[in-house]
Parts: sequence; structure tokens; C-alpha cells
Amino acid sequence: MDQLNRFPEQGVTDRSALDALLDSQWVGVLSCVADGRPLAVPMLYARDGDRVLLHGSTGAGALRQVAAGAAAVLTVFALDALVVAPTTFESSVNYRSATIRGPLSRLSDADREATLDRFSEVILPGRTTEVRPPSRKELAATLALALPITDDGWLLKVADAWPATPEEAEADPGVWSGLVPVRTVFDPAVPAPWSTDLPVPPSVTRLVSGDG
Amino acid sequence: MDQLNRFPEQGVTDRSALDALLDSQWVGVLSCVADGRPLAVPMLYARDGDRVLLHGSTGAGALRQVAAGAAAVLTVFALDALVVAPTTFESSVNYRSATIRGPLSRLSDADREATLDRFSEVILPGRTTEVRPPSRKELAATLALALPITDDGWLLKVADAWPATPEEAEADPGVWSGLVPVRTVFDPAVPAPWSTDLPVPPSVTRLVSGDG
Repeated sequence: MDQLNRFPEQGVTDRSALDALLDSQWVGVLSCVADGRPLAVPMLYARDGDRVLLHGSTGAGALRQVAAGAAAVLTVFALDALVVAPTTFESSVNYRSATIRGPLSRLSDADREATLDRFSEVILPGRTTEVRPPSRKELAATLALALPITDDGWLLKVADAWPATPEEAEADPGVWSGLVPVRTVFDPAVPAPWSTDLPVPPSVTRLVSGDG
Repeated sequence: MDQLNRFPEQGVTDRSALDALLDSQWVGVLSCVADGRPLAVPMLYARDGDRVLLHGSTGAGALRQVAAGAAAVLTVFALDALVVAPTTFESSVNYRSATIRGPLSRLSDADREATLDRFSEVILPGRTTEVRPPSRKELAATLALALPITDDGWLLKVADAWPATPEEAEADPGVWSGLVPVRTVFDPAVPAPWSTDLPVPPSVTRLVSGDG
């Protein structure tokens, strides 16, 4: 908490801070325009160096839309704390929020297998060594998209502030203020009914223990 | 886990399930169209009966856009588990995802105070009784918007399935599969430097203890 500053929200241009946010989350909201109206779909994603990989079924309408070259923006958000100020007006949240602008490109068939393996490895490191490779049929049924991270194509906003002071908020100094930190945790893995006699694999053990 | 089904994703038309998702989260992504391009902004929201309240600074560009009557869609997402299937192709996540379509309406000055109090109470129940009411100046600096929840204006998708079986996935039956549950937790409240001698108020104590 020592690094908390007094800026309720600020733009951050440090690319490593963007990567840290992207790597800490699994799901973003992909927004595009369809027939002049906003269309938004939450999607699993995985950062692979200077691009973000997304995939889904070849049947998914929103994905076909963006695959066809429509402008798109991916929003990734992490809530870090509730900011309980001495007034409701000053109360807010500490968060990190990234938007990355498209257009997305559809990956060629030749790239698809390596990319999907990479996707799986980012989501759950080590898992590809524990299972068989994707079949030709599975690869054909998967739409793989890449969103490049270009220098002028992303924005990162970070709020990591203490609440306003009672003086700043024109509030009673006897009113408590502070932060309630928010965190995402993994509970112990639950085996499928047909896997109860099998040991939990290393990929899952590492994830749950936080060493993933 | 007894209620897990075998549908990887399904539409849910039960309004109470929508409300439960909305009430379990604080932040959604508001997507709209600006100059033909997608615009997306994460926003704090609060459900108030048959509407979703959003607020922000009167200076915020995206908010002004939607306040002016542009079509908008709010996406709220909760990640419930990583689904570790016996193949990477079948692996996915269990989640709940809602989209609510606008247009948003801007609240009148007369409604604003009651609405902002309601907003604060949904975010942190009991807090409005612990602090002074908003001042006239604070109310003037706040843009309050409402997104009505109409019968045909929302979609809820829920995935709460076990992984595919090894037979379904054409995989080695010796490969473990199961779920890694994901949960959001609150850590103990951290007082601001000027509040360390004050008791943590009931609103915050209830939130952190899960009785909020």
C-alpha cells in the first residue's frame, strides 16, 4: 500500500504495466459495431508477446463480424479495492483498465495449431504436455483471431489512490475512510466424477497454489 | 456442484438469475458507438429494481455520448471456474454473462439526489447513514444515468458444466479433468493514514465479513 498515490485515475504508458494486467486476467469484453449498433461479447483471451489471441467457435456471430475486419476494442478490467471515502461523492474503486483497439486479424490455417497451443499454455501453463494435441477436426472448428498490441493502439488507466482526506472532501474528520482490497482466488480443484481416482495434474496444482 | 449440467453454455430467461449476477458484481463494460467506431468504458453500476444506475463525472466523454441517447450495451461478467477438460479443445470456463441494451436516460436534477443515495447504498449498504449527504455542488458535478431492464432488452448466458468426458473428447481416460473454482474475496479493510485511530464502520465490517 506504500505505493498508493493521490491521483484517483491516471493514464499509464508503461507497456510492462499493460502486460501485467493482461496476464493477470482471463476474460475481456470485445466490443464492435454491427449494423450501426454496439455489440459486446465477453471472451477468453491470452497475451502472446505483442498480440492478444482470442478464439471461439467458427459458428459465433460476433466473432465472424470482427474476423471480417470490423473495428473492435478489447476491454480488460481488474478491480483492486473499494475506496471508502469520507463522503459518498468521493467514494470510488481502485482498478486497472486496459483498452486495445483492433482490427483483429484471422489466423491462417498454417498458424492455427501453434497459436492454439500457445493460447492453452497461457491460460493453463503446462497443460498441453498433459493432453493429446488437437485433431484436424478440432482445429477446423476453431476460429483463431489475433489483436496486435501497437504503440498507439492501447490505453491503460490505473486508479490506486487513498480516499480524499476529510479536508479535501469537506467532511467530518471523525468519519472513517480507507480501502477494502478485492482479490480473485482459486479454490482447490474439483475432479470430474470420472476423475476422482486420478491425481490432480501439475498444471492444475501449480495454478491453485499460485505458482502457475 | 450438484447442479452442474452438461450444457457448456445456455441462455437463461429467469430474471432472478439476471438480478443475482448484477447484484454480485460492481463493474461492467459500457459499449457504444462513437463516429462509427466501438467505444467501451468500464463503469461502476448499481441495480435498482428494474433499472441499472451508472454515474460518472459530467466531464467524461463516453458518458456524454450515451447520455445523449446513443445506443449502448452494458456487459457484466462473472468467472466461476476454469473447466479443465481432457483435451485443450474442450477446455473452457464456467461463467455468467449478461448484456443489457440501452438507450440510457439521463436522470433529471430532481431525481439525482435520491438516485445517487440509492447507488451508494447498493455499492456499500449502510454507508449513507455514516456520512454527510452530497452537497449541491457535488450533485451538479455528477452525471447520473439509468439503463432500464426491459423484458426484451437483456440476455443472460450461463455455463456451469463439467468438462466433456474422455469418451466425448476422444481422449485418454487416464487424463484428469475437473474444475478449478474462481472466487472474489475481500481482504480486511485498510484504514487511510488519517483514520487509523477510528473504528471500522459497520458498512465496511459487514462487507468484509460477507454479511453485506
